[in-house]
Amino acid sequence: MKIYVNGDWTDAVEAAVPATDRGVALGDGLFETVAVRTGALRRVNAHLARLRSSAADLGLELPGDDFDALFREAVRLNAIDNGMVRLTLTRGAAQAGLAAADSGPPTVIISSVRRDPPEGLVRAIICETTRRNEHSPTSRLKTTNYMDNILAAREAARLGADEALLLNTQGRLAEATIANVFLVTDGQIVTPPVSEGALPGIMRAAVMAAEDVDERPLELKELDRASEALLTNSGGIRALVSVDGKPVGDGQAGPVYHRLQDIV
Amino acid sequence: MKIYVNGDWTDAVEAAVPATDRGVALGDGLFETVAVRTGALRRVNAHLARLRSSAADLGLELPGDDFDALFREAVRLNAIDNGMVRLTLTRGAAQAGLAAADSGPPTVIISSVRRDPPEGLVRAIICETTRRNEHSPTSRLKTTNYMDNILAAREAARLGADEALLLNTQGRLAEATIANVFLVTDGQIVTPPVSEGALPGIMRAAVMAAEDVDERPLELKELDRASEALLTNSGGIRALVSVDGKPVGDGQAGPVYHRLQDIV
Repeated sequence: MKIYVNGDWTDAVEAAVPATDRGVALGDGLFETVAVRTGALRRVNAHLARLRSSAADLGLELPGDDFDALFREAVRLNAIDNGMVRLTLTRGAAQAGLAAADSGPPTVIISSVRRDPPEGLVRAIICETTRRNEHSPTSRLKTTNYMDNILAAREAARLGADEALLLNTQGRLAEATIANVFLVTDGQIVTPPVSEGALPGIMRAAVMAAEDVDERPLELKELDRASEALLTNSGGIRALVSVDGKPVGDGQAGPVYHRLQDIV
Repeated sequence: MKIYVNGDWTDAVEAAVPATDRGVALGDGLFETVAVRTGALRRVNAHLARLRSSAADLGLELPGDDFDALFREAVRLNAIDNGMVRLTLTRGAAQAGLAAADSGPPTVIISSVRRDPPEGLVRAIICETTRRNEHSPTSRLKTTNYMDNILAAREAARLGADEALLLNTQGRLAEATIANVFLVTDGQIVTPPVSEGALPGIMRAAVMAAEDVDERPLELKELDRASEALLTNSGGIRALVSVDGKPVGDGQAGPVYHRLQDIV
């Protein structure tokens, strides 16, 4: 696989960033993962719009690269039929002080993986290790600060589950480690607003554009009366069929899941 | 300056880590910064004990390197009289999935800076951009997930302040962006417990060993009646003399500050 770093494509094993990069030292970066389906990029404009907006929020300089063209080059060079391309943008070389007033040029990394769209039914746990911080703007930005999600994913793996649902500091549903959460209760599709600690996912927005979705805080107990639940990310839409060993609805993928496969 | 990466010392401008490292991609790493004073490492055993404990909490493999010897080599190679050496430990090359069950060898980076001990009086703001998440174990681990601290430091810089005090999700004092906080109220030194979102700082522990310190949650209003306030980190102990433009105590470094300079 070829990886792009600041102007050059090299073999993945050789691609390197400075050891002093603020992305390594401080997690001072953002990323986007864009799905590739039969060789075509999915929702690339929405991803790039989110990246630009998030970079502005963080005072992170955007380089002049044509990211859309670079994504297409990654697909071509790596012969991606189905998979993901990932853009990582960091604040670049370390500057004295956290505030980085005199930040240098940013670092851009574009990597790729071949991967079939996700299949199968997801069994999740409720994460007990950590909580999503809805008080932080980073909960609404796709930063590289993924340690909470890593801890939650490790908890799920220890318990033999596929995913972990993260609660916010109020104990309400926020999202999963790599996906947004939707429930169907009383025939209505519902999802937590971003103010609850949910990342504004690109697939989440696509679901909300395609369906009548009620955005409101979700108490954990609403899982008990949900007829189905969905996990969405740029890679796809999956059916969440059990939580902490209890089935969601009848424990099968439901009609909303099946209907939404058309937009993936 | 020479930087160590996984067995080799190279010039800082050449030192590199794989672009696919989980430290870059996901902030999947820890760090320690150890002070050097007149050529000697300060509290290196305490730093390494914290690193080992934190790595165990994260399931992060510790390599066989003799970190103490590497720190001394960094001091020697870079002729550090006063400054800091920093160890960064990441989970290494990217593995599929956040949980990283089959994680590869970790990445070790040791970098150095020459810097005189901090001087001067610190003027801080109360951070309004973000909150410290006391519900997350990462608040008690020195991970590379520093985006909240970066946002707070940028807020302080915008307002012409030196530092920002971070509140936890309950609105109580947790710490500063790069330091723990102590107040002196009614003659008693007080500091928030780590359960309030305070990092268990090495200098914080040294202050608590040297003085009678009451660890308890601190409401913001306690700043108003504090006779002095201190910011502590491995680099030193500074006097916090104003917050949001209002003086702390008489706006000068106080007796506890002066007494504690002996332990720095």
